[in-house]
Amino acid sequence: MAQLRQVNLSTKELPDKWYNIIPDLPEPLPMPMGDKQIQNLPKMLLGECLKQEFSQERWIDIPDELQSIYAQAGRPRPLFRALNLEKKLGTPAHMYYKSEFFSPTGSHKVNTALAQCYYAKKEGFERVTTETGAGQWGTALAYGSAMAGLKCTVYWVRSVYNWKADRLDLMKMFGAEVYASPSNKTECGRKLWEKDHNHNGSLGIAISEGLEDSLNDPKAVYTLGSVLNHVLLHQTIIGLETQKQFEVFGEYPDTVIACLGGGSNFGGFAIPFLGDVLTKGKKIHFIAAQTAAAPNLQGEYKYDYADYAEFTPQLKMYTLGHTKDMVPVKGDGLRYHGCSPILSLLRNKGYIDTVAYPTDEKHVFESAKLFVRAEGWLPAPESAYSVTCAIDEALKCKETGEKKVIAFNISGHGFLDIPGYKSILGF
Amino acid sequence: MAQLRQVNLSTKELPDKWYNIIPDLPEPLPMPMGDKQIQNLPKMLLGECLKQEFSQERWIDIPDELQSIYAQAGRPRPLFRALNLEKKLGTPAHMYYKSEFFSPTGSHKVNTALAQCYYAKKEGFERVTTETGAGQWGTALAYGSAMAGLKCTVYWVRSVYNWKADRLDLMKMFGAEVYASPSNKTECGRKLWEKDHNHNGSLGIAISEGLEDSLNDPKAVYTLGSVLNHVLLHQTIIGLETQKQFEVFGEYPDTVIACLGGGSNFGGFAIPFLGDVLTKGKKIHFIAAQTAAAPNLQGEYKYDYADYAEFTPQLKMYTLGHTKDMVPVKGDGLRYHGCSPILSLLRNKGYIDTVAYPTDEKHVFESAKLFVRAEGWLPAPESAYSVTCAIDEALKCKETGEKKVIAFNISGHGFLDIPGYKSILGF
Repeated sequence: MAQLRQVNLSTKELPDKWYNIIPDLPEPLPMPMGDKQIQNLPKMLLGECLKQEFSQERWIDIPDELQSIYAQAGRPRPLFRALNLEKKLGTPAHMYYKSEFFSPTGSHKVNTALAQCYYAKKEGFERVTTETGAGQWGTALAYGSAMAGLKCTVYWVRSVYNWKADRLDLMKMFGAEVYASPSNKTECGRKLWEKDHNHNGSLGIAISEGLEDSLNDPKAVYTLGSVLNHVLLHQTIIGLETQKQFEVFGEYPDTVIACLGGGSNFGGFAIPFLGDVLTKGKKIHFIAAQTAAAPNLQGEYKYDYADYAEFTPQLKMYTLGHTKDMVPVKGDGLRYHGCSPILSLLRNKGYIDTVAYPTDEKHVFESAKLFVRAEGWLPAPESAYSVTCAIDEALKCKETGEKKVIAFNISGHGFLDIPGYKSILGF
Repeated sequence: MAQLRQVNLSTKELPDKWYNIIPDLPEPLPMPMGDKQIQNLPKMLLGECLKQEFSQERWIDIPDELQSIYAQAGRPRPLFRALNLEKKLGTPAHMYYKSEFFSPTGSHKVNTALAQCYYAKKEGFERVTTETGAGQWGTALAYGSAMAGLKCTVYWVRSVYNWKADRLDLMKMFGAEVYASPSNKTECGRKLWEKDHNHNGSLGIAISEGLEDSLNDPKAVYTLGSVLNHVLLHQTIIGLETQKQFEVFGEYPDTVIACLGGGSNFGGFAIPFLGDVLTKGKKIHFIAAQTAAAPNLQGEYKYDYADYAEFTPQLKMYTLGHTKDMVPVKGDGLRYHGCSPILSLLRNKGYIDTVAYPTDEKHVFESAKLFVRAEGWLPAPESAYSVTCAIDEALKCKETGEKKVIAFNISGHGFLDIPGYKSILGF
């Protein structure tokens, strides 16, 4: 064969452990704060996930059955060399992208949805509840629950619920019950819904509804799609596969890029490489691609709530403030006020760089179009930020002549987001 | 790991040859008929494809660079064991599905689009033209031409063009020029367009437009997405990968199923196994899943035109008649009057069985929903026919107790077809 453009692993090479970076962090991870909320944690999180959340074990076994479920979801996923894109840009850089877009629901979120549904089933629950904003997490949980034979209830911020019809139908295909939030299904939702049946809702309100629903039903458990340590832990399978694939290519990244909202995608891709930096003396430039609508890594490093309604404990993190208003963008999954505590600590210690792209998203979608015409894969709007950052870095290499190896993650596909592309790019 | 649910091959195991079944057929393949049209063939087809069309070589090399391009399109694609589905059905059958849904444009059509664009570039053309009905072939060619650095013009049957907005925008993302057909861009289109700007069009008219456009421009070449021998040849990569993957699973199919319109998907999946039957004495039950809107394998085996307007030579094939009216269905890619000459010959000799599902498509979409809830992957409407047939066969095994190995191909994903699902299933 001509030059190698893609490496996949055999199913047998699928990682059998997740990497927990907590014991390798440069200093202990600050604990959550708030007595009442912390007491509630065992009612809010799955038993196994709560254990993982504070584990000091460096490697945590992926149960055999869950490995098999990951394989059933198409893992391992290929790592691509972007030869066409390099040529089009005229860059001396070598560019590599990981293909989380092969996901059954369209994003990397399935990696933790499958894990949490596996544990929920094992721990005897019959139903999972959650909130969703952009819709990727709700779809992933709807899928995960169908695979595990669980019921699923999703509270979806009404302003998004109202226009993402195809994504809503996909959740229903998986058998999920989906409510526009605020709904009349919970006490906290009903109060708002009775005043205004068309209330736009917010992620904070939807979290409250998901939590209330599960707290009132002993057979149900609430699940989370980002920010927390165990969620990032489950996502490390992305970076662990990528490391093995780079060995086959015979290269190693100088720059690691992923988009960042709450941090599950960036963490999943970057944490195994951050581990190499912390424990093996590797030098890597990490860049989190963000939206100027929610540049949380440029916020303040302090204790703050993860939700609007202050149900959750306070976490030490980079935050814009948990009541911050953020303008809507097509990359809606990046619009979150705070960043995961693990990534926030590493940002604070100088390990993670960040860039935030303007909210008109023109540069982001034009870069994505360039990528589509060169490589053929249509990124989700959120993933388009990662693509943009990689292209910008490759163009810097063109100026300096540096032959950097640039690795970026494409967290999802954009087949359900083509109207978003059209609204920015015309056609 | 627990039980094996998926097998992929490494990039190095990608087949380096296509399988040409022509020399292994039980009798010589009837040649095309019609002096004028046959004289025109060299103007209508790429040089290399014309050579392949009549080749007697059993194995035809996939050029090195094209292998690399296939890898860039994500090949090889995984073969899945449908353990969840088997359990849900309570069948003793072992069910396996091939994942052409990992395609960048959503279907298997890319396998020949990439090959034809590769040859077009090599043969000095600057532009490819084609028609499309359902839109899968047009999108695949738009993608293939972008990868090869060619321009692309697509004539799209207006009645479909008008409602598949996302697919149209995807073609434009790849840089293709797309015209609703009949258009005012060609002489034959203009005549119809001038009478009625909203003329619904037909595949026959769109073919005429694509052909006229390329015949009037020495830098342009017309390309085809199904029926012809070289198109099926390119698609054999699907079945060849599947054979290698079955070796890893340690099983071999008793039943091979794929949906069939013109035959490129069925042929691509089944031909390598048909070769095993013809040359190695294997016994396999082949079933083509069709729509009752176009049950061409239940038609007449005779010489007929491939297009409405009689531009093409006549081919010996099972046909409903090239002027046949066919009711619209969501699985629009299956709505074609004739079946590929290779598959028609094998059908005539008793090697290929067929089933045609009712045009209300309820059974088909209900089966697809069952599949989605069990396995998580959303099939294209056309692929839902393949899924349905596999489920029906597995349920027969439940009755008889037979432990058959059932292999079926999922030719594409349904992310751009969710409104079609909704219109049939409600929600």
